Amino acid sequence: MGDRRFSLMVHGGAGTLDDAQQRAKGDAWRTAIGTVLAHGRRLLTDGASAVEVVESCVVLLEDDPLFNAGRGSVLNEVGAVEMDAAIMDGRNLAAGAVAGVHHLANPVVLASRLMRDDGPVMLAGEGAMRLAARCGLTQVGDDYFRLPERLAQLEQARAKQTTMLDHIAGAPAAETGKYGTVGAVARDLKGHLAAATSTGGMVNKRVGRVGDSPLIGAGVYADDETCAVSSTGHGEDFMRCVIAKTIADYVDMRGMDARQAVDAGIAYLVRRVQGLGGVIVIDRHGNCASGFTTRNMIHGWIEHGGDATVRL
Amino acid sequence: MGDRRFSLMVHGGAGTLDDAQQRAKGDAWRTAIGTVLAHGRRLLTDGASAVEVVESCVVLLEDDPLFNAGRGSVLNEVGAVEMDAAIMDGRNLAAGAVAGVHHLANPVVLASRLMRDDGPVMLAGEGAMRLAARCGLTQVGDDYFRLPERLAQLEQARAKQTTMLDHIAGAPAAETGKYGTVGAVARDLKGHLAAATSTGGMVNKRVGRVGDSPLIGAGVYADDETCAVSSTGHGEDFMRCVIAKTIADYVDMRGMDARQAVDAGIAYLVRRVQGLGGVIVIDRHGNCASGFTTRNMIHGWIEHGGDATVRL
Repeated sequence: MGDRRFSLMVHGGAGTLDDAQQRAKGDAWRTAIGTVLAHGRRLLTDGASAVEVVESCVVLLEDDPLFNAGRGSVLNEVGAVEMDAAIMDGRNLAAGAVAGVHHLANPVVLASRLMRDDGPVMLAGEGAMRLAARCGLTQVGDDYFRLPERLAQLEQARAKQTTMLDHIAGAPAAETGKYGTVGAVARDLKGHLAAATSTGGMVNKRVGRVGDSPLIGAGVYADDETCAVSSTGHGEDFMRCVIAKTIADYVDMRGMDARQAVDAGIAYLVRRVQGLGGVIVIDRHGNCASGFTTRNMIHGWIEHGGDATVRL
Repeated sequence: MGDRRFSLMVHGGAGTLDDAQQRAKGDAWRTAIGTVLAHGRRLLTDGASAVEVVESCVVLLEDDPLFNAGRGSVLNEVGAVEMDAAIMDGRNLAAGAVAGVHHLANPVVLASRLMRDDGPVMLAGEGAMRLAARCGLTQVGDDYFRLPERLAQLEQARAKQTTMLDHIAGAPAAETGKYGTVGAVARDLKGHLAAATSTGGMVNKRVGRVGDSPLIGAGVYADDETCAVSSTGHGEDFMRCVIAKTIADYVDMRGMDARQAVDAGIAYLVRRVQGLGGVIVIDRHGNCASGFTTRNMIHGWIEHGGDATVRL
């Protein structure tokens, strides 16, 4: 299986962070990503499986109001939270995905439950909420989510009549110019791969809008034979390119490593749909690579059990 | 662009049809598929675009109670219809998808509307129904869908406590052993490709279950640079393999034609997840190919403007 050491990557969203934003929150983001990497390192060193680790890392990111997932989820056009999440196990291509869930602290835990059951891979809306109730997942109240910053963002987006924030090429960076999503990919000591992605979607998004995050092959993919991928960005671009599977296919069909496959995938995303966002990838040998077309991507990694690196 | 003549393929689901079923309905299925092919031929000959033609062909299939989509949709665990559909335009990778819609005669029309808008690619549940209302799509009543045969199927599935019908390898073929989905792929006179897929899903399925049909890259994909694909089968298998994009990537990354890419895709589906179902594919040169792992797939094609062929 090549290198016997573990690798781990996590991200907290891509976009354009202006200088004020970096000053105000840069240290908090760096600390948060570093904390998640340290947590994942402990688990992986203790022999946890890749799929356990990506779930656990995404739970931490969902619990942190700094990130647009779980607690920090942005608000949709009616001021409500609708979250999407997915997880995939590279050992057997088992996958679970939920779309449009609400009042759950950790959508990735529900996706994981679906992955472990031998039933549907994906549940949306009230069907997903029924499963959450059957699994005994505690529901949290509106207050858990409606953070002052998120309410202010929604007001801004409504005023501009936009569903996303102005990180479009050519537009000036705004203080909220960040695509929020969180994700993790891991290779465990046995060489198995896994990936998980979770998001609150886009500020002021339409009710019922499903982005790429919960779509297997777009926002998430993991296959022991190729690589593990988690995406973040303008979901529609990633869906139309099926970017995570495309990157896995570059590894499978062209024999690329993580770095080459990320570069080829990002080039494809740009050439075909001028896509905005980024990806984190660990290949089956544990090589880590990231790529993004936005100015920034909040992410970090531990390659082959080495030092942790964090980048904004 | 190679061959200047059009090509068209349609399918009405894969599964195991026993002899009694073939005798009882074989002629009706053959006639229905032949009618749709003749309709598509007229449109394509008149210069219609591939995306117009796949939408129009899928509307006919949705209107026919013989097929599990639109009017003939099967019933879920609570006896209701929840339909999924998607459409994709190979010219620019524009795509539209709806999941969990109800009381609509033609979900593919709603997916198409989404494709033409510059907003979300995918809407689920009530969000999708809001768009339908905004678009002025007429809602039909429960009576439109609850056909006696579908009610009987649901009773059978409930009695067996199964979500699907007994077409599992080794199990005897049952009279209802068919995965229902409908789909169409086309290459128009200008060489453009498109694909559309629509379904009522699986009998007795969980509320909120989203199958592969509305997922770009799983149940549907179209790209002028590679091929157009529509899938039908056990959706979870197709989602985990992201089968439509995988087939497109065999064309893109390995230089395969439709026949080779279908064979490679079906081999991948079997090797990785023992997948049940089939695909129809037209490559950028207008070559047609189909493949399936079930005993039957109801489908037909016109290759390079030639005679129509129908197969069960």
